[in-house]
Amino acid sequence: MTVSRVDVVAAARRIDGRIRRTPVLRVTPTLTFKLELLQHVGSFKPRGAFNRLLSAKEQGALTGQGIVAASGGNAGLAAAYAARELGVPARIFVPETAPAPKVARLRTLDADVVQVGSEYAEAYEAAMSACEESGALLVHAFDQPEVVAGQGTLGLELLDQVDGFDTVLVAVGGGGLIAGIATALEDRARVIGVEPELAPTLHRALEAGEPVDVRVGGLAADSHGARRLGSLAFEAARRYDFGSVLVAEEMIVAARNELWHEYHLAVEHGAAVAYAALSTGAYQPVPGERVIVIICGANTDPTTLA
Amino acid sequence: MTVSRVDVVAAARRIDGRIRRTPVLRVTPTLTFKLELLQHVGSFKPRGAFNRLLSAKEQGALTGQGIVAASGGNAGLAAAYAARELGVPARIFVPETAPAPKVARLRTLDADVVQVGSEYAEAYEAAMSACEESGALLVHAFDQPEVVAGQGTLGLELLDQVDGFDTVLVAVGGGGLIAGIATALEDRARVIGVEPELAPTLHRALEAGEPVDVRVGGLAADSHGARRLGSLAFEAARRYDFGSVLVAEEMIVAARNELWHEYHLAVEHGAAVAYAALSTGAYQPVPGERVIVIICGANTDPTTLA
Repeated sequence: MTVSRVDVVAAARRIDGRIRRTPVLRVTPTLTFKLELLQHVGSFKPRGAFNRLLSAKEQGALTGQGIVAASGGNAGLAAAYAARELGVPARIFVPETAPAPKVARLRTLDADVVQVGSEYAEAYEAAMSACEESGALLVHAFDQPEVVAGQGTLGLELLDQVDGFDTVLVAVGGGGLIAGIATALEDRARVIGVEPELAPTLHRALEAGEPVDVRVGGLAADSHGARRLGSLAFEAARRYDFGSVLVAEEMIVAARNELWHEYHLAVEHGAAVAYAALSTGAYQPVPGERVIVIICGANTDPTTLA
Repeated sequence: MTVSRVDVVAAARRIDGRIRRTPVLRVTPTLTFKLELLQHVGSFKPRGAFNRLLSAKEQGALTGQGIVAASGGNAGLAAAYAARELGVPARIFVPETAPAPKVARLRTLDADVVQVGSEYAEAYEAAMSACEESGALLVHAFDQPEVVAGQGTLGLELLDQVDGFDTVLVAVGGGGLIAGIATALEDRARVIGVEPELAPTLHRALEAGEPVDVRVGGLAADSHGARRLGSLAFEAARRYDFGSVLVAEEMIVAARNELWHEYHLAVEHGAAVAYAALSTGAYQPVPGERVIVIICGANTDPTTLA
């Protein structure tokens, strides 16, 4: 099971009009931000969710049973949003420990929120069972070909919006976004995965030669909560030779504050991760290297920006 | 003293590279946001400040005495920022009642902050005197031709970034931005000034047939603190036939919350004013009318977005 550039191009056509074509901000002649935090429901995830749902619809696999997802975060919001827009029901499984505001937000998107177990793995198991029983469509947070191809549409936009670039810095959790972007770009630019030191799924997978379970935690755990890299992301990492950079917690905090104070962008910690690599020097471009930083999520508590 | 489109085009050339070309977000086929809140120091004001300083520099009028401005708000920040970038000192006069965080922020831009009197008018008088004594350059918040021409560069960007539009909704305080945009657009689109009911400088000027003093207050007083419309703005209002719409305080609050929750833009109250006209129906486009809303400032306390 692999994802090709043709799949990404097909995804772009499929989801056209459903997602926002998010703008880019040219910061300096060699630095551009892709403002994907302005996407519907505040992250890149609707790209993949819409592609998953619409692909299934084309094949008659999107029934009145609707969709199921397991996520209290951006993937859950995106699945619920896409389902609502397409007029099918969404059941979102989250742990009983999921924060009340997140559950409330899913419900404003008309999702049926099911709280089960004490951690994500239990919610995921329950979601799988629900799909088998009901025939609902499972929307994975990152490791499905349609999801990866959907996220890749962001990469196609970059080619259209930015006139020449060498490097793309992308935050990595389960790896759906970086895999999609690399597939869209093929060899047109280098892709570097940036991760919190406390959630190094890509880094450890590259060390181990395969995706392995890691302990995940830290400030960005909200959006970097995947315990291991997706298999599709690992395959893409091999094929497109991802770079890998880790950033410390205090770098993420500093980058997030800088994004607010200097660029007036209110971002979640996970979305400051990619910029942290640059702003703190963990990734040092060579002179003249043209870098794009993907600013990928806005689902944050703004009171923490004061 | 008038400002022409030629002046705006000259300003764009003059300030090129000093300001950010802020992106647009296409919200629907007929609605586009101009994301000017992403400008340096969080508002459109550096456009005018740079044009004022650089015009003076070309004429040998920018000396070691630097510049003087009277504003604790966005105009003061912009003047201080432009002066620092051009390597000249800035003295910014603010009332003794100016909030400490604003004074601190001006000081981080290396400005010499002078606190005088209990209201803006006294700070302005002191700034004028300081200019006369020292030969420093006065940078007005809105009513100087170079300032209006500089703000107009935003209008030129719209023509380049948006493929056909009918109407531009712009917040009005002293009127520098709307005058500049209208001058840039001439008759290419209709310009509508939107103001808080509690700060109706344009509205009252149009009623009275000339700029008149109004009482200003309310949530957006920070950025809509001008007590009367500028003379250049009034002239532009006549020449280009501005529309005028007022919005109530609660509309501004609702629009600001919607900009955060739906579009992930953290804006100051004054920058939610233009969108409030649309989101609350105070301005109702005809079917098919293509509208641009200028989102013009980010200098807000994010804790009030919770």
